[in-house]
Amino acid sequence: MSVQDIGRLDGLAYPRGAAYMNGQFIALSEARISVLDWGLLHSDVTYDTVHVWNGRFFRLDSHIARFRRSLEKLRLRVDLTDDALRDILVECVRRSGLRNAYVEMLCTRGVSPTFSRDPRDAVNQFVAFAVPYGSVANERQLREGMHLHVIDDVRRIPPASVDPQIKNYHWLDLVTALLKGYDAGAETVVIKTTDDAIAEGPGFNVFVVKGGQLFTPEAGVLHGITRQTVFDLAARRDMAVRAARMSEQQLRDADEIFITSTAGGVMPVTRLNGAPVGDGQPGPVTRGLFDAYWQAHDDPAWSLAVDYDDQVCG
Amino acid sequence: MSVQDIGRLDGLAYPRGAAYMNGQFIALSEARISVLDWGLLHSDVTYDTVHVWNGRFFRLDSHIARFRRSLEKLRLRVDLTDDALRDILVECVRRSGLRNAYVEMLCTRGVSPTFSRDPRDAVNQFVAFAVPYGSVANERQLREGMHLHVIDDVRRIPPASVDPQIKNYHWLDLVTALLKGYDAGAETVVIKTTDDAIAEGPGFNVFVVKGGQLFTPEAGVLHGITRQTVFDLAARRDMAVRAARMSEQQLRDADEIFITSTAGGVMPVTRLNGAPVGDGQPGPVTRGLFDAYWQAHDDPAWSLAVDYDDQVCG
Repeated sequence: MSVQDIGRLDGLAYPRGAAYMNGQFIALSEARISVLDWGLLHSDVTYDTVHVWNGRFFRLDSHIARFRRSLEKLRLRVDLTDDALRDILVECVRRSGLRNAYVEMLCTRGVSPTFSRDPRDAVNQFVAFAVPYGSVANERQLREGMHLHVIDDVRRIPPASVDPQIKNYHWLDLVTALLKGYDAGAETVVIKTTDDAIAEGPGFNVFVVKGGQLFTPEAGVLHGITRQTVFDLAARRDMAVRAARMSEQQLRDADEIFITSTAGGVMPVTRLNGAPVGDGQPGPVTRGLFDAYWQAHDDPAWSLAVDYDDQVCG
Repeated sequence: MSVQDIGRLDGLAYPRGAAYMNGQFIALSEARISVLDWGLLHSDVTYDTVHVWNGRFFRLDSHIARFRRSLEKLRLRVDLTDDALRDILVECVRRSGLRNAYVEMLCTRGVSPTFSRDPRDAVNQFVAFAVPYGSVANERQLREGMHLHVIDDVRRIPPASVDPQIKNYHWLDLVTALLKGYDAGAETVVIKTTDDAIAEGPGFNVFVVKGGQLFTPEAGVLHGITRQTVFDLAARRDMAVRAARMSEQQLRDADEIFITSTAGGVMPVTRLNGAPVGDGQPGPVTRGLFDAYWQAHDDPAWSLAVDYDDQVCG
């Protein structure tokens, strides 16, 4: 990944990209929010992410629709039509020149001019940015499968506390589990719900393949758009999907395991808690869905081309 | 509260104050973190806050010690000695010219130059700032008592997910409850733990006075330094304090209720869910602790004077 952008204010290196905030397109290193923004100080913020592959956005309308639902639930306001929002995201990518990009839209509660503790006094702040496409799994892991650990002693924040359908940045449970997992030799982790079911990992949903059927957790997890895409692709091939409570034993008994994320798509898991999954190779169902997932990126019904004109900024 | 500082980058109004980041003291409006900082994007950050009253910090060493414990638990690194950290906070206040200030120190996971998802790749970022002193209760509420509601349908993020002794910004449960409380006529709210005990409110602990004794929740809440100060003041007057599971019924049966926070100290609650607490006036125990709390701010053992030299910056 190229690092092109050196911050004028801090001298730090930033990935290549472009951003939008306060009504302007700016360099990524200049996209900064106040330390008084409640988006930082109370994680009072929602977001969505979408990716661009080979110059085309994938399922952008689904991501914008989910962003709208999250905003409404948190009583946050973005004064842009869906068309204007889409144009801003496309323009970020066009200005970045990136053919493969990870694109994020977010809205913070914002700053209150008096630092009032009443969230209704803050001025909501919309930000969008495009950076080089990144994946939960690196190239080797996509080819050979990831090493996943189930971390037992950190539990996913329950829906009674934070609605997981509001896409949120409350990740300390996931970050803590990830650091514990690294200590134990994991490449990534999944954690459980407070009532002992498998939940999700840092930024991804998890699927089990067993006897030709797909299984994935339903409660207490984000209903990811890549997860939905797997449902849609499975339906096309008459493969049953059961979204329901999942035990750790189901993971242990799996023929195949894969994880799904906008950051990486369909990614094979070939070791669980240090032991091989199935024969320890990415399985046929995972490979079939992987191929179908990336082929779907050329489908005009699910994708939107960016009109690059060789302009490259930031 | 005076608004003096208009942001050069965004044209927004900021409170008067001063900040420190990247090794420099800067205007508050210029204190900004990258939108790529995991402190924003994963709320992967810890902090502490302390206040200055009549030109003196209150229990600063306790706040710095807690900040160190939070940093260690999250594997975040601030390359400053306690003395250097103290000097930076004092200098923020001195530069602000504020005699009454709210002072925050925080450390984010930071930005990874490649936007890597591995938290170990990020460059941790320390920030400190001083703003005008703010309180959970306004002047009228301090005099007459606050109207508190118990919100039942949002539960505090449990310790199994996020250790509440790591001071953290995972506040969507509290913000959601606060917005629901405002709808119902509340001035502030408390929420419960996932196992139905009273937990805490947005930035404060809660106390019940009953039969001359003090009661406060113990599990699933931040052990606030103002809460500890109330324990210390109660010990001086031979008043028993019981830190244990608290039911909503205990709140309903209270002789007096008060809340505690670095942002406001000891603050009376005179209405609970719309009904008067006791006789509906701040009670004698609350008033006694209120007075003792503010008198303690002159105690050299618990306070540190700022050496102002009439310098006042933005």
